[in-house]
Order: sequence, then C-alpha cells, then structure tokens
Amino acid sequence: MVSEKMVGLVKNSSAIRAMFEEGQKMAAIYGAENVYDFSIGNPNVAPPEAVKKAILELVSEDSPRLHAYMNNAGFEDVRDAICKSLNRRFDTQFVQENIIMTVGAAGGLNVIFRALLNPEDEVITFAPYFGEYRSYVGNYDGKLVAVAPDTKTFQPNIEEFEKVITAKTKAVLINTPNNPTGVVYAEETIKRLVAVMEKKQQEFGNPIYLISDEPYRELVYDGVFVPYLTKYYKNTIVGYSFSKSLSLPGERIGYLVIPKEVEDYNMVLGAANVANRILGYVNAPSMFQLVVAKCIDEKTDVGYYDRNRETLYQGLKELGFECIKPEGAFYLFVKSPIEDDKKFCEIAKKYNLLIVAGSNFGCSGFVRMAYCVAHDTIVNALPKFRELAKELKMIA
Amino acid sequence: MVSEKMVGLVKNSSAIRAMFEEGQKMAAIYGAENVYDFSIGNPNVAPPEAVKKAILELVSEDSPRLHAYMNNAGFEDVRDAICKSLNRRFDTQFVQENIIMTVGAAGGLNVIFRALLNPEDEVITFAPYFGEYRSYVGNYDGKLVAVAPDTKTFQPNIEEFEKVITAKTKAVLINTPNNPTGVVYAEETIKRLVAVMEKKQQEFGNPIYLISDEPYRELVYDGVFVPYLTKYYKNTIVGYSFSKSLSLPGERIGYLVIPKEVEDYNMVLGAANVANRILGYVNAPSMFQLVVAKCIDEKTDVGYYDRNRETLYQGLKELGFECIKPEGAFYLFVKSPIEDDKKFCEIAKKYNLLIVAGSNFGCSGFVRMAYCVAHDTIVNALPKFRELAKELKMIA
Repeated sequence: MVSEKMVGLVKNSSAIRAMFEEGQKMAAIYGAENVYDFSIGNPNVAPPEAVKKAILELVSEDSPRLHAYMNNAGFEDVRDAICKSLNRRFDTQFVQENIIMTVGAAGGLNVIFRALLNPEDEVITFAPYFGEYRSYVGNYDGKLVAVAPDTKTFQPNIEEFEKVITAKTKAVLINTPNNPTGVVYAEETIKRLVAVMEKKQQEFGNPIYLISDEPYRELVYDGVFVPYLTKYYKNTIVGYSFSKSLSLPGERIGYLVIPKEVEDYNMVLGAANVANRILGYVNAPSMFQLVVAKCIDEKTDVGYYDRNRETLYQGLKELGFECIKPEGAFYLFVKSPIEDDKKFCEIAKKYNLLIVAGSNFGCSGFVRMAYCVAHDTIVNALPKFRELAKELKMIA
Repeated sequence: MVSEKMVGLVKNSSAIRAMFEEGQKMAAIYGAENVYDFSIGNPNVAPPEAVKKAILELVSEDSPRLHAYMNNAGFEDVRDAICKSLNRRFDTQFVQENIIMTVGAAGGLNVIFRALLNPEDEVITFAPYFGEYRSYVGNYDGKLVAVAPDTKTFQPNIEEFEKVITAKTKAVLINTPNNPTGVVYAEETIKRLVAVMEKKQQEFGNPIYLISDEPYRELVYDGVFVPYLTKYYKNTIVGYSFSKSLSLPGERIGYLVIPKEVEDYNMVLGAANVANRILGYVNAPSMFQLVVAKCIDEKTDVGYYDRNRETLYQGLKELGFECIKPEGAFYLFVKSPIEDDKKFCEIAKKYNLLIVAGSNFGCSGFVRMAYCVAHDTIVNALPKFRELAKELKMIA
C-alpha cells in the first residue's frame, strides 16, 4: 500500500544504518567494549567546549528569537558570520544572500536537487560515493550516473567522466575529502574536471552545475590543500555541514553556498529557498544556527582522528591488508581480501568487527571502516583483525 | 534552468512567508511598534521555563549522545516518553515503535506522503486549509483535492466529501484545531467523516489513510474536546509538532504516530523511516528530542492566547467585521468586507495591518489574522482597524 518507489528502498534499506542499528543490539548483548563498530560516521570526539559555552550564553540571553521562526534561508547575522569566515579563509567574496542555512548537508543536497532537477535529468558522481546520493537524486526522479573508480588513486576518473557526460547532465556531484576513501581531490584533478565541464556546457548550451558536498572540509591531515571549488568553476554550489567539524551530527545543521556567479542565480536561489520550505524543513534549527555562528572558527580535534588513522592504517597494513592512506575525513577504504566484499563483512562480524561493504558505495571489492571511534576501540580491534586475517590465511 | 516544477512555485511563493518577510522590512522602516503583523503563526509566548531548565540540565550532563546520531526514528526513551504521555491522556495503547521523531509537523507530513504516495494518487483535504499542503502532496506527484468549505460553520463538508472521494484517494488530510479558522472538528463530524471512509475502503478494496495534522492540539479554549483520531478509525496516522505547544517553531521538532492497527503497518513504518532518512532529515534534531521528552507534560500559556482571542474578536465584531469565534489555534478567519480578499489585504497594509488573504487557504472572500502576537499589538491595532472600517464605509 506504500509508494512503489519506497518498496525496494525499504527492502534494501541503507546497509550502513542497518549495521549501526545492529551494532547497538550487539553492544547490548556482548557489552559495548566488546563490539568494534566501524560502521558509521558518528564522531566520537566531543564538540569543542565553545559549543557548550555558546548554548549556555544563548539560553541565558532569553532572546525571543532563540527558538522562533525566521526567514526560510536562516538568520541574516548567522549567514553573515558564515560568509565572512569563508571569505577570510578562502579569499572569496560571498555576501549573506549567498548562504541558505539547511538541515545538515543531506538537507542541503535535497534542497538543491529539488531546486534543479527535472525528471530524467542526470547527476554524475564518482565511485566510490556515499550511497544515499542515489536516493537524494531519485527523490526528484533524477538519475544518478556513477563514473567507474580509479582504484589505484581513487581520484575522479576524468577520462571515464568525459564519456558519460551528456546533454542530460544537469549536475556533477563531488565529495572531497571523500567518503568512503578519505582521498582529497587534487587541484590538478579539479582543473581537469572543470575543463571538461566548461567544454560540455559550451557544447550543449546549458549550465552544468558542480555540487560540492563538503562535510569533511575541515578534517584533513598533514596540511593537505582542499581547493575551494567556487574559485575554479562559476556554476559551483557548495553544501556544508557542521556535523563533523563541530561533532554535531544529530543536530542537523549546515548550509548551501549559491554564489551570484551561478547561471540563472536569482531563480536558483529562489527555488532553493522555496524547496527548503516545502520539503518540510521550513528552516534549519534556530538555536543551532546561532550556536554555529558563535563557533564559526572552532573546529574539532583533528589530531584525535589523525592518531586513529595512523593506528588503524599501520595495524591493518602489518596484517597484510591493502589500503590507500587517507588524507582527510575519517574513513579507511580497504581492499577486501576476498572477492566478495559483503561476504568479508559477514565474516568480520563473527569477530564483532562491524565494517561496511564497498558495494554500498558503488565500489565492490572494498570495505569502509569509519575510524571516528574511541582510540581503544582500534587498539582492541587489531587482535580481532589479526584473527580475521588468520582465518583468511593472510597471515600464519 | 531550475526544475520546471519550481518555476511556478517561486513566482507564487508563499504569500504568508512573503508577508512575514515584508513585515520585517516594514518594522525596520516604521518601527516594530507601528507595524501590526498578524501574518504568521510565530508564537509570541516564550517557551515554558521548563524548556530552559531542560537545556541547561542536558548541557551540564555532557552525555555523548546529546548531539549525536541515533536511529533514524529517534531516541527510544524519547519515543517511549511520548507514547506514555499519549496513552495517559488519550487512553491509547501506543508503544515506542509507533513513534517516529520528525523535523516538525511539516517534516512529518513530507515523510508520510513520501512513504505513501504514488504519482497521481489523490489526497483530499477540506477548505480552508494550510496552503503548503498543496506543495507537500505535490512533492511526490500526488494531487491535492480540496472539498469546498461550509462557510457557516467551517466544519468539514461531508456531503461534498462523499462526492470527491474516489478509488484514487490514498489519504484524507485534516487539521483540527484548524489553521486558518480556529475551528475544532466536532466528534459528530469526525464520526460522519470516518463512516464515509470505512464505506469507501470497502467499496474500493484499498486502505484510505486518515492523516491528522495536529500542531494546535493543545491550544484550545473553554475546555473544548478534541477527539484523538486513532480511536475512531484504524487507518489513522497522526502528525504532531511542539512548535506551538512549547513555542519552539524554529527548532523543527515533532513526531508521527503510526499505530500498529494501520493496514500494511510494517511496510508503512519501514517506508516512513526510510523517507525520514532519504529526504535528508536523517533524524529530528537530537538535543530537542531530549528537551521535549523532559517537557512532555508542559504546555504553553493558553490563557495568553485566549485573552488575545477575546480582545481581537470582540474588537473586530464591534467594528462590523464578521467572524466565527475560534475554539482553538491562534487564528481568526474573518469575512472580507469586500469581495476581493487580496485587495482587502492590500488596503489593510496601508494602515500597517498585515493579514493574509483567504485565497491562500483555498477560501477566497476571507482573511486570516494570526493573534499569537503581543497583546499590545492587538490593542494598538484596533484603532487602525477602525480607520480601515471607515475607509470601507462599514462604520461612519
């Protein structure tokens, strides 16, 4: 009796979420300390102390606007604080009108797809990619087209990209630092990507929007450079979330940047504002808009994740697992030691190791491990990975 | 270049929202005290003190779950607190599995329409109705069918309803206490409504879901009885929001109730959970889930709205305006003294009186006034309404 569109989705409901919910059940059975849950990007690092301070200040101010409606795009002073921070850090020239506060990055992506897509429009992304993208595009009857991965570097495969871009391509969706690989798309790759897009826009006579999903922007290691994409291509729209940078994933707070250089700017901005309202978000949560504005230059303890990255990466490498060393985010994308990545995840589960099959990211033969966990979880999981490697005869 | 679906929506963007945004501009020009903004349901009453206390307690607890992801349906103990409160107050038998926490009632309605609707499915509602319903249904290519109003009582017109219900009817959407009329649907009306629905379900061999949008449930005057609809019809799904009952409209916190008696229960529940995730809400804001659980038996100062109701109702009546006396919510639905309700709103604006045309609610010839404002706004607006009545020759 439900929507036909939903039947398949319910049956194949997010494997990541299913694993997360199963992990909670396993924790209840075996004790949380005996379950090694690498399934979900739920940051283990507490929010910066400034978040707590901001909440306490806001509550004590008793401002009538604290929990109230505001313009659908969000509080103007919050949007102003955000664009000033962006301008300072990336040498951009945004004004508050360019910012729409959203219910996290997932909300922002839904808003922009609702704003842009007609049925059958195509959105290209690069495998491996966050599996939910397929639903976000499908919600508006668009079609997600995945470019096959370059499993050596996990940089976008530009040759393959050029083969799949067509007159139906409305947008290209990228995610850097990347979930699930932790790879940061190199400036050189970006330049090649947008060169193709510029050429194809000319050829087809239609704008092709570059949508940059950036929840992991602040989570980078070894000082790696993450290009700000509006500076490379004028039809760029940025989606951001404070879920990871301030460890606030449950609060659903993020924003879209729609620069004035975007083709059909007024209409795109208007459509995004209306979409924010009619999709039922109405506005991003009011108090957390004010909280993030007060914490705009705060960020999470990247050093914590860096230590986890080193421990898990080195530990797995010693056991014979193959993996590219991530430059950002908090995921390791490990080659499955057996062909069937789903089967590998099932075997791992026997050791209470919860990891997610790469096929959920459009890249079978790999598995994702989210290392945004307690450091001890990694330390205690490594002997279990050793047992797993033994079972698979990777080590004696 | 934007979605064709959005072009018209952008051009005819919500008149209520447009008025609200214009009101803020007018306040900047004339001073807030000289603008009488009855345009939007933004509660003027502060949240109960318990909300502040709950936030302070939660923040001081430093619980790792405070800002974290949880199951898409929400924290289990929060859902448990909600169903226990419902069971206590309405003699129902819900369990926590029946509750899905949502991003306000607007989020909840989008979730349930995404879960249920196939393209061309019809959703029947009763004029006058909240104009956004059209978009919420249209988001999923459903068709909103409005039953013509009974402008004497503003109770649902059951004779007309029986004429428009067809095999394509997937759901009936009602809102009681009603926005924009303030009318509470009488138990007798509800019984007649569900009798027709039962009969038609039998006739067509398909479930017809009754969706009850109840953000104003707690806002009733003179002890009027608001039937809890799951007790009258088994295929009932309830959408609730704390926006009005706790004065938290900006925080986007509410829930859906999907009782186990609903036909195809497991699939409907599963589809709603997936919809909550893929529409990009992911989950209702985490901290405010915990806040509302702590404030579950609190409610806003209804007496405040009651005083406003009396003052505005009596004041307008004395000036010759015609209006049904509201029993709930915080709106007055006043007959336009001239045929063209939009023109009347334009004339009122000359006196800095901001009111919304009934045609936005599928009921032309009337206007809506939201009296969730400072009492002084009403007192000071009445002389302006007098001038307006004079201009229209309603009084000498």
